[in-house]
Amino acid sequence: MQTQIEALLAVSTSLLQRFHATRKRTVSLAKPLSEEDCCVQSMPDASPIKWHMAHTTWFFETFILEHFEKGFRPYHQAFRVLFNSYYNGVGEKHPRAQRGVLTRPSTDEVLAYRHNVDARIGLLLEGLVRDGASETSQTVARLVELGVQHEQQHQELMMTDVKHLLAQNPLFPAYVPEPEHRAEKVSAAAWIPVDAGVVEIGHDGAGFCFDNELPRHRQFVEAFSLASRLVTNGEYAAFIADGGYRNPTLWLSEGWDWVQREKLAAPIYWHRNETGAWQEYALGGLKSLDMHAPLMHISYFEADAYAHWAGARLPTEFEWEAAVRQSGLTQVFGVAWQWTSSGYAPYPGFVAAEGAIGEYNGKFMVNQYVLRGSSCVTPDGHARFSYRNFFPASARWQFSGVRLAKSLQ
Amino acid sequence: MQTQIEALLAVSTSLLQRFHATRKRTVSLAKPLSEEDCCVQSMPDASPIKWHMAHTTWFFETFILEHFEKGFRPYHQAFRVLFNSYYNGVGEKHPRAQRGVLTRPSTDEVLAYRHNVDARIGLLLEGLVRDGASETSQTVARLVELGVQHEQQHQELMMTDVKHLLAQNPLFPAYVPEPEHRAEKVSAAAWIPVDAGVVEIGHDGAGFCFDNELPRHRQFVEAFSLASRLVTNGEYAAFIADGGYRNPTLWLSEGWDWVQREKLAAPIYWHRNETGAWQEYALGGLKSLDMHAPLMHISYFEADAYAHWAGARLPTEFEWEAAVRQSGLTQVFGVAWQWTSSGYAPYPGFVAAEGAIGEYNGKFMVNQYVLRGSSCVTPDGHARFSYRNFFPASARWQFSGVRLAKSLQ
Amino acid sequence: MQTQIEALLAVSTSLLQRFHATRKRTVSLAKPLSEEDCCVQSMPDASPIKWHMAHTTWFFETFILEHFEKGFRPYHQAFRVLFNSYYNGVGEKHPRAQRGVLTRPSTDEVLAYRHNVDARIGLLLEGLVRDGASETSQTVARLVELGVQHEQQHQELMMTDVKHLLAQNPLFPAYVPEPEHRAEKVSAAAWIPVDAGVVEIGHDGAGFCFDNELPRHRQFVEAFSLASRLVTNGEYAAFIADGGYRNPTLWLSEGWDWVQREKLAAPIYWHRNETGAWQEYALGGLKSLDMHAPLMHISYFEADAYAHWAGARLPTEFEWEAAVRQSGLTQVFGVAWQWTSSGYAPYPGFVAAEGAIGEYNGKFMVNQYVLRGSSCVTPDGHARFSYRNFFPASARWQFSGVRLAKSLQ
Amino acid sequence: MQTQIEALLAVSTSLLQRFHATRKRTVSLAKPLSEEDCCVQSMPDASPIKWHMAHTTWFFETFILEHFEKGFRPYHQAFRVLFNSYYNGVGEKHPRAQRGVLTRPSTDEVLAYRHNVDARIGLLLEGLVRDGASETSQTVARLVELGVQHEQQHQELMMTDVKHLLAQNPLFPAYVPEPEHRAEKVSAAAWIPVDAGVVEIGHDGAGFCFDNELPRHRQFVEAFSLASRLVTNGEYAAFIADGGYRNPTLWLSEGWDWVQREKLAAPIYWHRNETGAWQEYALGGLKSLDMHAPLMHISYFEADAYAHWAGARLPTEFEWEAAVRQSGLTQVFGVAWQWTSSGYAPYPGFVAAEGAIGEYNGKFMVNQYVLRGSSCVTPDGHARFSYRNFFPASARWQFSGVRLAKSLQ
Repeated sequence: MQTQIEALLAVSTSLLQRFHATRKRTVSLAKPLSEEDCCVQSMPDASPIKWHMAHTTWFFETFILEHFEKGFRPYHQAFRVLFNSYYNGVGEKHPRAQRGVLTRPSTDEVLAYRHNVDARIGLLLEGLVRDGASETSQTVARLVELGVQHEQQHQELMMTDVKHLLAQNPLFPAYVPEPEHRAEKVSAAAWIPVDAGVVEIGHDGAGFCFDNELPRHRQFVEAFSLASRLVTNGEYAAFIADGGYRNPTLWLSEGWDWVQREKLAAPIYWHRNETGAWQEYALGGLKSLDMHAPLMHISYFEADAYAHWAGARLPTEFEWEAAVRQSGLTQVFGVAWQWTSSGYAPYPGFVAAEGAIGEYNGKFMVNQYVLRGSSCVTPDGHARFSYRNFFPASARWQFSGVRLAKSLQ
Repeated sequence: MQTQIEALLAVSTSLLQRFHATRKRTVSLAKPLSEEDCCVQSMPDASPIKWHMAHTTWFFETFILEHFEKGFRPYHQAFRVLFNSYYNGVGEKHPRAQRGVLTRPSTDEVLAYRHNVDARIGLLLEGLVRDGASETSQTVARLVELGVQHEQQHQELMMTDVKHLLAQNPLFPAYVPEPEHRAEKVSAAAWIPVDAGVVEIGHDGAGFCFDNELPRHRQFVEAFSLASRLVTNGEYAAFIADGGYRNPTLWLSEGWDWVQREKLAAPIYWHRNETGAWQEYALGGLKSLDMHAPLMHISYFEADAYAHWAGARLPTEFEWEAAVRQSGLTQVFGVAWQWTSSGYAPYPGFVAAEGAIGEYNGKFMVNQYVLRGSSCVTPDGHARFSYRNFFPASARWQFSGVRLAKSLQ
Repeated sequence: MQTQIEALLAVSTSLLQRFHATRKRTVSLAKPLSEEDCCVQSMPDASPIKWHMAHTTWFFETFILEHFEKGFRPYHQAFRVLFNSYYNGVGEKHPRAQRGVLTRPSTDEVLAYRHNVDARIGLLLEGLVRDGASETSQTVARLVELGVQHEQQHQELMMTDVKHLLAQNPLFPAYVPEPEHRAEKVSAAAWIPVDAGVVEIGHDGAGFCFDNELPRHRQFVEAFSLASRLVTNGEYAAFIADGGYRNPTLWLSEGWDWVQREKLAAPIYWHRNETGAWQEYALGGLKSLDMHAPLMHISYFEADAYAHWAGARLPTEFEWEAAVRQSGLTQVFGVAWQWTSSGYAPYPGFVAAEGAIGEYNGKFMVNQYVLRGSSCVTPDGHARFSYRNFFPASARWQFSGVRLAKSLQ
Repeated sequence: MQTQIEALLAVSTSLLQRFHATRKRTVSLAKPLSEEDCCVQSMPDASPIKWHMAHTTWFFETFILEHFEKGFRPYHQAFRVLFNSYYNGVGEKHPRAQRGVLTRPSTDEVLAYRHNVDARIGLLLEGLVRDGASETSQTVARLVELGVQHEQQHQELMMTDVKHLLAQNPLFPAYVPEPEHRAEKVSAAAWIPVDAGVVEIGHDGAGFCFDNELPRHRQFVEAFSLASRLVTNGEYAAFIADGGYRNPTLWLSEGWDWVQREKLAAPIYWHRNETGAWQEYALGGLKSLDMHAPLMHISYFEADAYAHWAGARLPTEFEWEAAVRQSGLTQVFGVAWQWTSSGYAPYPGFVAAEGAIGEYNGKFMVNQYVLRGSSCVTPDGHARFSYRNFFPASARWQFSGVRLAKSLQ
């Protein structure tokens, strides 16, 4: 018994430390930005930095304090609506496309909100340790863990959203001097073969995972091979030079309509300078395109068209997961999310959590595609083999790239 | 050798007969309609009946006569563009949403076009029989078969499109007195269990199939059970009565946005009469809703929300195919297409045909969901276990229904 | 007294004759068209020919028979809604953009509706003559006159709408061989001066006019001069050749946005042939552009930009009316409607009629511009000095042209 | 000669003082706002406060310094595009709807830009005084005057735009405690009659005016009467209570479509509290509606519908100008702009200035309606009898109200 309490104590202490570290990191990500940078919303799909800082706090207040803090009083009545992202079970929501009009509360007021909730979560966790290994303790610990993971997801979104915002500005301001991953000069990709067979897919039980990674179950994959590395900027530039954006036979029908409607001819952050040479807007500002660096900020439509042009295809998420558990692949994590051809769907036996928290993942399982791996702006410790990121086929503002696959037969 | 020629002769004769029978059936489907009914386009997703009649003819002219008829001359220069549906490889296309402005050519002119192409295809096929079992003969026979199957698909679309058109008219005119399937009084659905295991999916080699049914390959399905029959109108009416269209927690997020935006409260062809009782527009006109009949004209979003409400889910297309090869299911074919939760994607090893004909299926494999089975307006002989129909998640004008599934564990 | 009755008799007989002649002309305008041509709606602003034929009949039924026929029974209950154009006072309306889905009633059924209402109006008018010069007689006579004038307006719209429909067809079918006005070779326009002064504007009391032409009132016009003839196709072609559609400084700001958004580079029915020479779609089909013919099918935005380029301006409607009462102008009537710079607004003291008929004109007096004169498709006897036609600034499918003005000072 | 120089000196000194005073006032208007408030754009029609501060500076730099400063160098190359509002003659423009993404330059950087240009304009004006009464001196003085007037217009827009921004925030933050005009308890409006006759319209030559107020010319107005005061909130509340927003027969057709599409039931800043009582968002925050205060923030459509309901109409701009030169009216200036029924059109003989500055007014003369008077947020000294403000018929975010008129006959 003593041991059990000590174990819990250790877990809680570690959790509390990670809670505070994660909370601190969010604030530090906003440090290089002005109050204006933190307030503006550059498109409906992106959110203001200040909103991210408030919403992640709302998450802890709404799903933990409101249920487990004695004598709970909301920090601010209006915040319950203002910073609710999409939880219908919680009640009304401020419209997503209008997040940028919230010039008030100010960043300072949001920071004060953060500090208040941080302190209260701290007290709650400490109290739970004193109470021992109750069911409530475990529920709260699980929810704090979820809140930490949730906030890490928003840390990545802060980077994608601020990049999109600054990229709209003709002055191309830098976020920080040199934040993005740069690859070494690369040689040709190798094709890593994987045999046909039944594979286990999904989280295997150790440590945290989201509900969409469960249940672990079986899939059959036919023999295939996967590229050892990601597609590079130089390879994609060759696709463009070959008329890739002007040839409808390379594209999915809906992708071609999108290219025509949006008048696209290159990835979202690529620009040509006066001499026609490629430049790329990165978090460090506008710079000449590194042809050896992995391609990023690519939509599913573009990824699929490129694969078609290259005589290959995108892997399914099951192929990806099966392959990365083997050796031979590089750039699996920490570089760019990798589009798969798998529609985002529930695993067999998937059960969403009870209540509003059950809206976390399940209700988005339509018309989105799974990305695997992680990116250069994913927080440390947030990646794993079974992780399922997902975005619509036209999304380009994420740090998303391409790993090619081929069927073997 | 003699035998081989005789076999070919038999096949060709049978093909020619089916060709003419199919072509004749298309024209007979338009018989109950006025020239105006045949010309108007009720929405961009639907096409005019006259356009269907011309496009199916264009298919034979463009993919067969143009390549294999000696001294080929197009029937009408402009038809190449006017009646091209979506084949970028063939060249320009008349815009899809503008098909309804083609008051010319008249229906009679389109029928003349049909007769001309019918006769030329007939001559071509007869000539090929005389030439023996050449590679060309086989290619042409394959393409004629494809054209026949293609025309059968359009026969179903003619029914869905004319139903949509007539349903827009406040007079609710009937197409014909009693064309739709009516179910007997039904008892509760049974849950038919299927064991976990590796299953073979896709066409097995005998007879015609579309490229999207290939290659036959393996999938693993975990244990599940499938409802023995389709969901009925009465069951869906209970979902509505229980506030189904007003409860966001039942819906996929995008589905809920769609319900709100379109202000939906019932299936597309359901109306309430003055006393509040449900009526349904059918090809025979407006009539009171048959509560025992299978539910039809349901979008994926509605199907998913209903399944959620009913404590079940939609099957994957692999589960569906695995189950129907077992015994125990009713209403598999000839009633209503059955939505699956499977995004429409290529099977492992999928290869599209060379040239423009390769645009037939592959380029639509994004943001669509697979439906299995067949409907009451699917032509005889057009259904099979491996058949994959597909539509976007919001499509409601097809004869689409719901068969529920449950995971077993 | 005797004389009064005889006068009324004469008037009524004349009215009845004109009623029947007008009704017959409407049907004859549809003669060259197929049932499909009569049913399709090419854009929300245009209506199907069949709808025009039904709506003009609805007008007589709703505003006359319903109020003055003894034992009135509607011809068809649903027609009251189906063929109501925009009279909120009458009740519900079939949505304007959905007029083209009404494949039923058929053209024959609409013709039967016309014959029925024609006969009943005939009986009513004859009965009124027998009753003598009652107030009711005079009211009915006034309403029949209004219905005749209303139908003449729709006769012009039938020509504009069928031209628009057939022009959408890549086959460019002709309505009839040579229906449009063709001008002689023209010499340079003269500038006809008009002195400053108070002028009387509006209908002067003799014969029929619409309510928007009343009350006759005074306006002051400063000295100006008006071009003796309309702008020609050749003059407008010079504007295009000089970069007219690419130079924002020539355009009203909203006009330039419209040009950019719609990617415009020429009038709506102009096309270049393979050699780059201008062709024009006319009711007789596609033909080479007559450079001496008056320019037609021009929006207000285009008219204004052309005038700017030509160092002139558009006249106000008061200038136009003042000038045409002087001598010196040609092409005033029967060629092309002439855009004025006058927003469509009520004359001082304007009073709309009581009841639903009061919606005829007044409620459209915003964001539209007045056109004066008449066109080559205006029915004989429908034009007068005080007539005010009106359309939004972007409308191009009317037979609208340009007469230039200049201030004198 | 001495006198002439002294006169010029006096004028220039006065101009320089007004220049600096106006420039200072702009900055002081932004004082109560945070940097976030100054950066965000709440809708495409509104601009950020920071943008207003930069654009008014750009105006002086582009139209004066660039042409008249020796050795001119642009302050920042990119500002020429970023802060160009709509002058095609100057070159490219940052898209209007994207003004809110400009988180950089910061407010401080914009203030530095302002100081720089202020100093240079000061030096230029002082130099011109030394040079004597040259033509250049007079041109520059005219342009500085125009720039001052232009900046005053933007001062009003800053108030309208910041009010719109803060009103989107569910917290309803106040700009300052009590900035808006509040009327005394009012008695019934009197009808002030004006006789028919020729009137002089437009600026009469003394002092500054915009080009759209010229040339002074004659108009004839028929006898009419004008309400002595503006419509009150209480009167408009009665219109609402009487079903004003639900009765199509009161509205212009396009206005009714707008009401339906936007689902409107009250003025833009009116809200009902929990008990159903009216509240109004004002620059001082949300407060209960003052029924005696003049109605504001009304679109032309609403103004016209209200007038219709009240048995009156809107005046023309000529009637308005004729009446205010007589005695008897109150609330002419400094309360709310007054919609007129006059489309915004050039006066006879109107000539726009040469070059890009000619785009100031003329190109907006379509589909807008003239408002006369001035509002509670119009800068002192900016109003005059001949002033013509103009907005589209659906614009509601301006301080616009209603003065009724009636024809007399």
